[in-house]
Amino acid sequence: MSAASAPSGSPRVRLDPATRKEQLLDLGVELLSTRDLDELSIDLLAERAGISRGLLYHYFGNKQEFHEAVVRRAAADLIAVTAPVEDGDMGTRLLVSLDRYLAFVEANHRGYVSLVRAANGSNPVMREIYEEARAALTDRIFATAGEQGLAEFGVVDTPAVRLFVRGWAVLVEDVVIRWVEDPAGVARDDLLLSLSAILAQVAVSAPPVRPEG
Amino acid sequence: MSAASAPSGSPRVRLDPATRKEQLLDLGVELLSTRDLDELSIDLLAERAGISRGLLYHYFGNKQEFHEAVVRRAAADLIAVTAPVEDGDMGTRLLVSLDRYLAFVEANHRGYVSLVRAANGSNPVMREIYEEARAALTDRIFATAGEQGLAEFGVVDTPAVRLFVRGWAVLVEDVVIRWVEDPAGVARDDLLLSLSAILAQVAVSAPPVRPEG
Repeated sequence: MSAASAPSGSPRVRLDPATRKEQLLDLGVELLSTRDLDELSIDLLAERAGISRGLLYHYFGNKQEFHEAVVRRAAADLIAVTAPVEDGDMGTRLLVSLDRYLAFVEANHRGYVSLVRAANGSNPVMREIYEEARAALTDRIFATAGEQGLAEFGVVDTPAVRLFVRGWAVLVEDVVIRWVEDPAGVARDDLLLSLSAILAQVAVSAPPVRPEG
Repeated sequence: MSAASAPSGSPRVRLDPATRKEQLLDLGVELLSTRDLDELSIDLLAERAGISRGLLYHYFGNKQEFHEAVVRRAAADLIAVTAPVEDGDMGTRLLVSLDRYLAFVEANHRGYVSLVRAANGSNPVMREIYEEARAALTDRIFATAGEQGLAEFGVVDTPAVRLFVRGWAVLVEDVVIRWVEDPAGVARDDLLLSLSAILAQVAVSAPPVRPEG
């Protein structure tokens, strides 16, 4: 997903610490793709990276910090891979981003579910990391569309519309996770078209914002 | 919300154990309404109920079992208070249920958020309890509407529609929790009307189910 370039068979090449840490995070995200967060240990990372636990503690402090760093990286990867394309109208660009989001969840299902659970659970740091990612993903819809793009959809940017678009993002998360587990006879393209159509409906159906007083 | 009838000032009245346990659960839910689940301890319950910790351990075994019992009770309360009314068309009944759901979240905000977090977190028992409640809430929409009611909405009951209606329920959860925290200029009635309108749109926009093959 991100800048990991050294093949995993040659982990002992000398690298500067920042690059080394980035590589370890990439490996952490890769390991998370098929595991729950609970199963992602410093021991496992050390074994796969071919370096000592002591060195990993040097980089990550403790298991909690390691998990936070991996979740932060996974969230950054998700934001990066779903970045809107330049071409096409708002509807087309939205479909491309949704398609990439779905591909991310398909490729990283177990880790993504674990990440969403951690984000929705009671650990405030995990919640904050994921809230930032969610906010980035939905704010981007507004930034990318611009005033004109939103007007095409018949939408004005209000706090109420943002509240509901964020609700749509949570709907997408839930539906996509479930669909990957059980497609229920729904074709991939049809799923994407429906999710996209519902965004427009949700935005248009968001309640009016009334002046206070 | 449920069958608690003894005034909390007279907790030492002799009751049969089942009734006593029910009362304690009601008190647990009441305490949860203004607290996080983490802050809900057997000590606190013992103090408020005016009975010994030992007796509470007799009823609930340990803190985890106590929490599960309280969350189970809160979920049952939520299902009960949002039960569809008999009168009116599907739209009206949906609005009444949404109104009661919103009132529940308004009255129990802190505990409800804590419950949703526990349900979305990594504890499998909590997840199961809340999944059952969510399933009950959304399945009821189909049961109440019946074939004819769904047809009024232009909807057929398919796995795809169920997948998306469940997504709508998650949207409602998120929007309502956020609205209670910050109404963003949105009037209560407008909120309910929007949430209700979006259900119909989501159900109609759910993808087709294609025959396998």
